[in-house]
Amino acid sequence: MSTIFSKIIDGDIPCYKIAENEEFFAFLDINPLAKGHTLVVPKIEVDYLFDLESDHLGRFMQFAQQVAMRIKDATGCLRVAVVVLGLDIPHAHIHLIPMNSMVDVDFKKEKLKLTQDDFLEAMAKIAF
Amino acid sequence: MSTIFSKIIDGDIPCYKIAENEEFFAFLDINPLAKGHTLVVPKIEVDYLFDLESDHLGRFMQFAQQVAMRIKDATGCLRVAVVVLGLDIPHAHIHLIPMNSMVDVDFKKEKLKLTQDDFLEAMAKIAF
Repeated sequence: MSTIFSKIIDGDIPCYKIAENEEFFAFLDINPLAKGHTLVVPKIEVDYLFDLESDHLGRFMQFAQQVAMRIKDATGCLRVAVVVLGLDIPHAHIHLIPMNSMVDVDFKKEKLKLTQDDFLEAMAKIAF
Repeated sequence: MSTIFSKIIDGDIPCYKIAENEEFFAFLDINPLAKGHTLVVPKIEVDYLFDLESDHLGRFMQFAQQVAMRIKDATGCLRVAVVVLGLDIPHAHIHLIPMNSMVDVDFKKEKLKLTQDDFLEAMAKIAF
């Protein structure tokens, strides 16, 4: 059975897509900690980030860098935080979170309630 | 003026060293969220992670992967979380945190009070 992220990559579940290349895919987190919060995933289903083959992992981070630079430009945040937890969905993913203070990366706080227009606006600014 | 991490790398400030190569350095966080919590830094002083040149960033993540695999083996944790925040010390650093639940990566909780023996034991298990 494919993961929810594979279904998003395949287009079986809709998403606010930010970027894609042969190996990786980025889209807005629909339960965001901050506006512009993006998930970056490898197209192959690997449960645990560090199970990626070394070169693949390096390219994954380079792809995340491209996305993060777009998020920073689009949102004007101080930093784009990088968080990989990996206890929930068994498909490795990097959270890229526009950050101005520690509050923005508190995974225990209530997620933002954004409208579809908010998501579309963020996508339009960040996507490439 | 060099950062606290550069002083650690240069040996001017002591640390519990985990690993080192020509470009990167890893050592135990002395204010850990979990036993085995490690910081990985590039030897060059770069304030912001994503200001690293792309190939350098890729190698940084590959070095972090080697460290994370050692942490996982040494601690038996479910995952090694990856967190980069970067609002504090102006020298890019990756937190690698042995994780069994979300509590282990709550940066707002009180840090662990470990003894020197605890640190030495963790270092002995993880270092390579």
